[in-house]
Amino acid sequence: LFEITILGSSGAIPAYGRYPSCQFIQVANKYFLIDCGEGAQMQMSRFQVPFHKIQRIFISHLHGDHVLGLMGLLFSMHLQKRSADLHLHAFKGLDEIIIAHLKYSHSALNFTIVFHTTQEGTMETIFEDDTITVETIPLYHRIACSGFLIKEKPKPRRINKNKLPPTILLQQIIALKEGRDILDDAGNIIYKNDALTLPPPPSLSYAYCSDTAFNLEIAKQIEGVNLLYHEATFMQEEKKKALETFHSTTADAAHIAIQSNAKALLIGHFSARYRDLDLVLKETQEIFPNTSLAIEGQTFKIEA
Amino acid sequence: LFEITILGSSGAIPAYGRYPSCQFIQVANKYFLIDCGEGAQMQMSRFQVPFHKIQRIFISHLHGDHVLGLMGLLFSMHLQKRSADLHLHAFKGLDEIIIAHLKYSHSALNFTIVFHTTQEGTMETIFEDDTITVETIPLYHRIACSGFLIKEKPKPRRINKNKLPPTILLQQIIALKEGRDILDDAGNIIYKNDALTLPPPPSLSYAYCSDTAFNLEIAKQIEGVNLLYHEATFMQEEKKKALETFHSTTADAAHIAIQSNAKALLIGHFSARYRDLDLVLKETQEIFPNTSLAIEGQTFKIEA
Repeated sequence: LFEITILGSSGAIPAYGRYPSCQFIQVANKYFLIDCGEGAQMQMSRFQVPFHKIQRIFISHLHGDHVLGLMGLLFSMHLQKRSADLHLHAFKGLDEIIIAHLKYSHSALNFTIVFHTTQEGTMETIFEDDTITVETIPLYHRIACSGFLIKEKPKPRRINKNKLPPTILLQQIIALKEGRDILDDAGNIIYKNDALTLPPPPSLSYAYCSDTAFNLEIAKQIEGVNLLYHEATFMQEEKKKALETFHSTTADAAHIAIQSNAKALLIGHFSARYRDLDLVLKETQEIFPNTSLAIEGQTFKIEA
Repeated sequence: LFEITILGSSGAIPAYGRYPSCQFIQVANKYFLIDCGEGAQMQMSRFQVPFHKIQRIFISHLHGDHVLGLMGLLFSMHLQKRSADLHLHAFKGLDEIIIAHLKYSHSALNFTIVFHTTQEGTMETIFEDDTITVETIPLYHRIACSGFLIKEKPKPRRINKNKLPPTILLQQIIALKEGRDILDDAGNIIYKNDALTLPPPPSLSYAYCSDTAFNLEIAKQIEGVNLLYHEATFMQEEKKKALETFHSTTADAAHIAIQSNAKALLIGHFSARYRDLDLVLKETQEIFPNTSLAIEGQTFKIEA
């Protein structure tokens, strides 16, 4: 399972019931949050997101609309007796803000925050386990900002049960899944791997790119991504405003999707000037048809 | 006009769509906010509260559920081009938190925050103009905490137009409103004040008491208050929990209302354990019948 649930998709000023940036990610039994705008915990409650399961929180940058929901979430986790470590990935400074809040509320959380400092302007792998990696994507914004690329690792080959000889041993099945041939004691091939196996299921990926000026450099890193979330704060007529504020337009997001050969595009971080998002979607789809709006409460399943 | 609009009435963990503490006050052409829990700006947008008009924000204490909506509100005021000074009354530490947020988001607000440090454990007048005063109410909580008492000053006597002689001078009308008699040049009384005037309209008052352990000492300060907002985090069966956490129960709130001869009681800061608030209200009304629930979006008019 690889799913993205949108909890907030507003730009800097929340408007029309939209909340600031926040996404809940479920991938291979791991639970992440990307960004944590104000009201994130209320949105989790509203959409029945199990926030006690969150293991890691990735914060793209320290503008308020991406981070002001964090303290409330931490306090609620504390009040609900969380004991598991919480890993927090962010640029330097967020640790200081958290400490100031704890100090003046005379609070000590009953769980540990493991703070991982994001490095500015460089791509790095910030999480890795048996099944996935998470990389930062350097973005251009007014302050240090990084996107995140979550990629499944190559998966084992699938055993073709119809072809499997009844005498096969468990250790031979493991070898087959790893892509090896089956050899006899003398080292001769008994079964070629591809005679008994099928290719592995594809490794899926998700890229989160917000906030950012139009930046074609990221296309190479996210090449072939299954789902690209890219901010589209403005429509094309506000291109000048987008440039001034280091944000992207609908067309910018669509062109990044094209250049990176993304399978699907999800746009968000909508300016408060757009009450109705139909035109925002339409303008993007004219360039990249397989585009969806990041609507709060909706879950996007990443599939082959 | 003297009105209280409830924007949040939840205890520490927001639940069932309830938001943390926040109230918008309109009194004699002044606009105040008391407390600013997470999501306050979204609630203002939802209930069409004109947040650009807010002149002063009073923060009772630095627990997250009373203050975490402040930075988002400040950033939105900034983005909406506020230029007027904003007066902020709070205990020491909130200034440091604000500065840390501004520093790490590389932001400089385009308006001035005038920070007024609340003194702990003492009643003081923290705002006064021609028509009202605002006093702190020392409360007992786990950290430094103060309530607020907003009182209209004595108003001018009302002219009894039916009794007014046609020859009266403007300066004599002013004297009458101030309660003085009308004298001739020799200093003899021409008109006794009460022959031409009616008593002034009553001076109204509002007390906000949250968060606090049961504390009868406040009754004297808020004697005769028109509307008392008092926290009732727990029902009576959780009295022990209330004591442990320095909170109040329904009965505690009702007894403060009785002891202070409050005209009406408004309860809030409801624990997340209560989905339905009917029993919370009923238990309070059994002791103090003129009690209402602080329901979000509702406006309570303070009248004689």
